[in-house]
Amino acid sequence: MIHPTAIVSSKAQLGRNVSVGPFTVIYDDVIIGDETLIDGHCEIGYPTALAQGMPLTLGSKSLIRSHSIFYQGSTLGDGLVTGHRVTVRERTQAGINFQIGTSTEIQGDTTIGDHVRFQSNIFVGKNTRIGSFVWVLPYVVLTNDPTPPSNVLLGCVIRDYASISAAVTVLPGVVIGEHALVAAQACVTKDVPPRMVVAGIPAKVIGPANDIKLRDGSGRSAYPWNRHFTRGYSELIVQEWQKENGYQNT
Amino acid sequence: MIHPTAIVSSKAQLGRNVSVGPFTVIYDDVIIGDETLIDGHCEIGYPTALAQGMPLTLGSKSLIRSHSIFYQGSTLGDGLVTGHRVTVRERTQAGINFQIGTSTEIQGDTTIGDHVRFQSNIFVGKNTRIGSFVWVLPYVVLTNDPTPPSNVLLGCVIRDYASISAAVTVLPGVVIGEHALVAAQACVTKDVPPRMVVAGIPAKVIGPANDIKLRDGSGRSAYPWNRHFTRGYSELIVQEWQKENGYQNT
Amino acid sequence: MIHPTAIVSSKAQLGRNVSVGPFTVIYDDVIIGDETLIDGHCEIGYPTALAQGMPLTLGSKSLIRSHSIFYQGSTLGDGLVTGHRVTVRERTQAGINFQIGTSTEIQGDTTIGDHVRFQSNIFVGKNTRIGSFVWVLPYVVLTNDPTPPSNVLLGCVIRDYASISAAVTVLPGVVIGEHALVAAQACVTKDVPPRMVVAGIPAKVIGPANDIKLRDGSGRSAYPWNRHFTRGYSELIVQEWQKENGYQNT
Repeated sequence: MIHPTAIVSSKAQLGRNVSVGPFTVIYDDVIIGDETLIDGHCEIGYPTALAQGMPLTLGSKSLIRSHSIFYQGSTLGDGLVTGHRVTVRERTQAGINFQIGTSTEIQGDTTIGDHVRFQSNIFVGKNTRIGSFVWVLPYVVLTNDPTPPSNVLLGCVIRDYASISAAVTVLPGVVIGEHALVAAQACVTKDVPPRMVVAGIPAKVIGPANDIKLRDGSGRSAYPWNRHFTRGYSELIVQEWQKENGYQNT
Repeated sequence: MIHPTAIVSSKAQLGRNVSVGPFTVIYDDVIIGDETLIDGHCEIGYPTALAQGMPLTLGSKSLIRSHSIFYQGSTLGDGLVTGHRVTVRERTQAGINFQIGTSTEIQGDTTIGDHVRFQSNIFVGKNTRIGSFVWVLPYVVLTNDPTPPSNVLLGCVIRDYASISAAVTVLPGVVIGEHALVAAQACVTKDVPPRMVVAGIPAKVIGPANDIKLRDGSGRSAYPWNRHFTRGYSELIVQEWQKENGYQNT
Repeated sequence: MIHPTAIVSSKAQLGRNVSVGPFTVIYDDVIIGDETLIDGHCEIGYPTALAQGMPLTLGSKSLIRSHSIFYQGSTLGDGLVTGHRVTVRERTQAGINFQIGTSTEIQGDTTIGDHVRFQSNIFVGKNTRIGSFVWVLPYVVLTNDPTPPSNVLLGCVIRDYASISAAVTVLPGVVIGEHALVAAQACVTKDVPPRMVVAGIPAKVIGPANDIKLRDGSGRSAYPWNRHFTRGYSELIVQEWQKENGYQNT
């Protein structure tokens, strides 16, 4: 299951049934969990002095799609699934069941909770902190330098269940509250209160997220999204959501 | 003309004079037309269950530049030309003479007409429908989920000859009319009438496209663009345009 | 130091101690300076008729990170450092100590001064002219066609020490003055006077850059940035700045 053209360091620690595709390079400081599949043309454990000798640790049952690059010095939990050409730099800490879309770049020094969904071509600056169950849509830019160039790095904070629509820019140090929604192509310059919607440049609060209706003709609220959207989450999580939300499936 | 480092499945069907570059992988379910050139570091016919066993079909006289990825289950017409690192996923149907710029990603389940021009780093969400002779400039995002995350997928529709400027976001389900122009960095939240220009966030109609002058000092209208811009189209097409537009070259 | 899987043309001219990583292809018309490192999965000197037979010239002491593509017909000065998946097309002329972030694309026919810093995922259209000590942040798009599609190419001009924040679009032919600042996600439709800040869509002048304070609690102005930010520049340059700015480090 290691393709004969792959170059795998003898120092790398691969779990059971790890698969490595053609033309992929696996460097020295790498630990990969059982049943993880790594496509072709990847670089896994790309060396950097900034990792201070720490290994790259990938969990079990993960899928790294082709042309992706993971630096030494990061830890990602079980069940990671990536698109193609993902870049994850050093000192990124991510929880379980993280999904990362094609061409997304995580610059490192970042913490990410569990069950986070990043779609395509997202940029995550250093020092960003992201909660659990967060959704980030394509072409979102999470910045960190308030007066470029400077030595001040103020990472963004995105709290649990927040949803950031396509092509949004979040300015340095901004906190986006739990269950908040940022509308497409907003430029978020100030903190977003929990469960509110912001839109525009600069982004302004336009009301509670709960006022937005699903476009499926049901008349139901689209937010909090975990009242209606459960695809890809475990039965245990969905049951927990149903309890919290005080409803029964009918 | 198959580079010795390329990995080409014996099940793949390659036409006459097909060329395959170094370190490229060609999977099983692939049909490639005559005279087509595929650069190095590509993956052609990337397998996916979502393709339901359908092959990737690439037409003749096409050029796939390096580091590109085409999934199984799509069909692209003759004369395709791509930049580097293009991603085209399953169930994409595209007509002839399609051009796709570097780093553009087509997520699949999409129909695209003939002679379409995509520039660099465009994102095309699933369920998008694009006509013929459409132009899409760099960093355009065509979305499909009106209330992310949800199970509602409303693809955008872009009609013939429309031109979408750089860094535009088009919201789910929006229809952009024939010969319409969307100004740079607009966020298109509502349908755009044919032959009109929209601009801003949210995008508003600012007048007929015909009012915009070419910047070449000629005083002529820039739109409909096919009255003055013919580079890369066949003589037959250009003659047809001249007839439709009721003018003669002088 | 040439990896055995790399494919290096016997016509390419490599300086002393040049290193070439796995699965990289180096074409014929290439001149590489001493001590330069090229990672794996790159294509160096990608052939194009548009280069009119000119070679790719890379300076000494440079670092090209993996999956990058440089076309034949460009010249980049000593001390170049790139991220991953950079694309630099033909007839690009860049000075010394140029830094290019991951996924940035330079379309060619472009001149770039010394000590320029491009961050990730920037798009530089043909005919762009960039001075020295310029900063360009992620997802900036520098356009060149005022009425797409047309045959008019009006490249942007960005003068020395200007700083372009994340996700900005600059319209064709716009001149951004020395030491100017463009705020995040602005759409710059008109020239920006030197040392001013512009913001919004369309971008408007909101005041002198000098009014913006550093976010480090010092109360100092953030601009001109070279009064406080010196990381990565040589001692000689920093001394020159100190003389020009009439201050002493204390």
